Amino acid sequence: MPEKIGFVGLGIMGQPMVGNLLKAGYKVFAYDVMEALVERAVAIGAVRAGNPGDAAARAEMVITMLPETSIVEKVILGEDGVLSGLQPGGIVVDMSTTSVLATRRIAAAVKELGRRMLDAPVSGGDVGAAEASLAIMVGGPAEAFQEVLPVFQKLGKNITHVGDSGSGQIAKACNQVVVALTIEAVAEALVLAKKSGADPAKIRQAMLGGFAQSRVLELHGRRMLERNFTPGGKVRLHKKDLEIVMEVAREVGAYMPGSAMMCQIWNSLSALGGLDWDHSSVVKAIEMLSNVEL
Amino acid sequence: MPEKIGFVGLGIMGQPMVGNLLKAGYKVFAYDVMEALVERAVAIGAVRAGNPGDAAARAEMVITMLPETSIVEKVILGEDGVLSGLQPGGIVVDMSTTSVLATRRIAAAVKELGRRMLDAPVSGGDVGAAEASLAIMVGGPAEAFQEVLPVFQKLGKNITHVGDSGSGQIAKACNQVVVALTIEAVAEALVLAKKSGADPAKIRQAMLGGFAQSRVLELHGRRMLERNFTPGGKVRLHKKDLEIVMEVAREVGAYMPGSAMMCQIWNSLSALGGLDWDHSSVVKAIEMLSNVEL
Repeated sequence: MPEKIGFVGLGIMGQPMVGNLLKAGYKVFAYDVMEALVERAVAIGAVRAGNPGDAAARAEMVITMLPETSIVEKVILGEDGVLSGLQPGGIVVDMSTTSVLATRRIAAAVKELGRRMLDAPVSGGDVGAAEASLAIMVGGPAEAFQEVLPVFQKLGKNITHVGDSGSGQIAKACNQVVVALTIEAVAEALVLAKKSGADPAKIRQAMLGGFAQSRVLELHGRRMLERNFTPGGKVRLHKKDLEIVMEVAREVGAYMPGSAMMCQIWNSLSALGGLDWDHSSVVKAIEMLSNVEL
Repeated sequence: MPEKIGFVGLGIMGQPMVGNLLKAGYKVFAYDVMEALVERAVAIGAVRAGNPGDAAARAEMVITMLPETSIVEKVILGEDGVLSGLQPGGIVVDMSTTSVLATRRIAAAVKELGRRMLDAPVSGGDVGAAEASLAIMVGGPAEAFQEVLPVFQKLGKNITHVGDSGSGQIAKACNQVVVALTIEAVAEALVLAKKSGADPAKIRQAMLGGFAQSRVLELHGRRMLERNFTPGGKVRLHKKDLEIVMEVAREVGAYMPGSAMMCQIWNSLSALGGLDWDHSSVVKAIEMLSNVEL
């Protein structure tokens, strides 16, 4: 069971996660390219690391929480990267949402050097990170999962070992497909209600009691009615996630007409200047082409 | 509070509903065009009615539970129809899923004759009907809703007065949009999982813990994995419901790209001979074009 953890990526997700690890008594060696973020982590008790390799060398495992695949690849495999410092038997846990194919490639490189890797993307956003209530979907060797499980339990609540390397990323990709399309469905339904002369708030209430129930209807349905598009989960990130899905679908040959449609809607929100809006703003695109506002 | 209820339409939904009303102590005057269905109702304690008008004349309110709009229209407004027998102040409660526009038209005709109408479509299928756990979405005059509420409470659990005439049907239409697209989303996600080499059952489990949670993921996700396409909710009926949605969308000017896509998928299931499969069989169309089975 690790006591010292390297942590690379101290942004909107990483920062509160580091806080939870420190609170649980772990020693955390923190690194980010942005010096201000490192200082903020040091202020709450983390130890400054000089680069990802340094964070890895001083710890038994390293968590990465980064915005995109190319950065994860560089941080783990690149110069002064995690692999340059990680001790034999050490574990790198990538909690970013990244490409399944790249994850498998990185995991193979890590294994070749006698280290281990878990892919462990999360669902729940910055609120879940702060409250340590993230859903964590994990791929990689079972015994590495068991070793890291106590750490995961300080960061989240629903922790599933899905399968081999890449499986965590596949689960996250699937999750993002379902969430995106459910948001779109709720948006269409509420706009239809409004255009038909009914009260969308009452319709949402009626639907929550039936088979249409979902967490998205509950939380994002309310957001749509309250016009609360402050993120939360940004369009920018969900858009990236669906682009990863389309990449995998192309590679493995999966027919995904709904996800393809969603990519078009994200493109539209990008055109509307909404990349930093909450992803429930899908309703804005549906409203705009229906010439109505909820 | 009514004690005598006319009931027209004794099929897969109507039959168990009549049973629940009889159990609750109501006197039920039952009619269906199929004599065998009337006999089955009489066998459990209902009184035979000669036609919809007769059922109405002997009761204080009449429930209709019929397969399509044109039949509802004929049963209520036609020769020997409900309106020909219903006493002044009587209430007709259409619990079928029918066109919003037709419902408003029928309700206006009913009102003109000094009777009252509620549209009260349900969600929950034959299981919900049998267990008296239907979600009931009600449109029409508030005081008629209050009078009928004790009867609704013998038939279902989540009972919402949504608004004016037609609002119940709008709520049901919205409900069917959300359910259809959520099924499609779950189907795409599980197929992607399978094609990517992960275990769809574990992916479903992981998703249930996060923001992708929904009743559809829980129940229909399991159906897809178990290949259990015995209805349940038939493709035939959900297809009809989305066609009603498209009709309303065209009329009021609502942009519904996801619902339009769903109609194409229902068309494909029809081509595959699946009109009487459970609606979770959406996954079969996604599987077929992905050349895989879960």
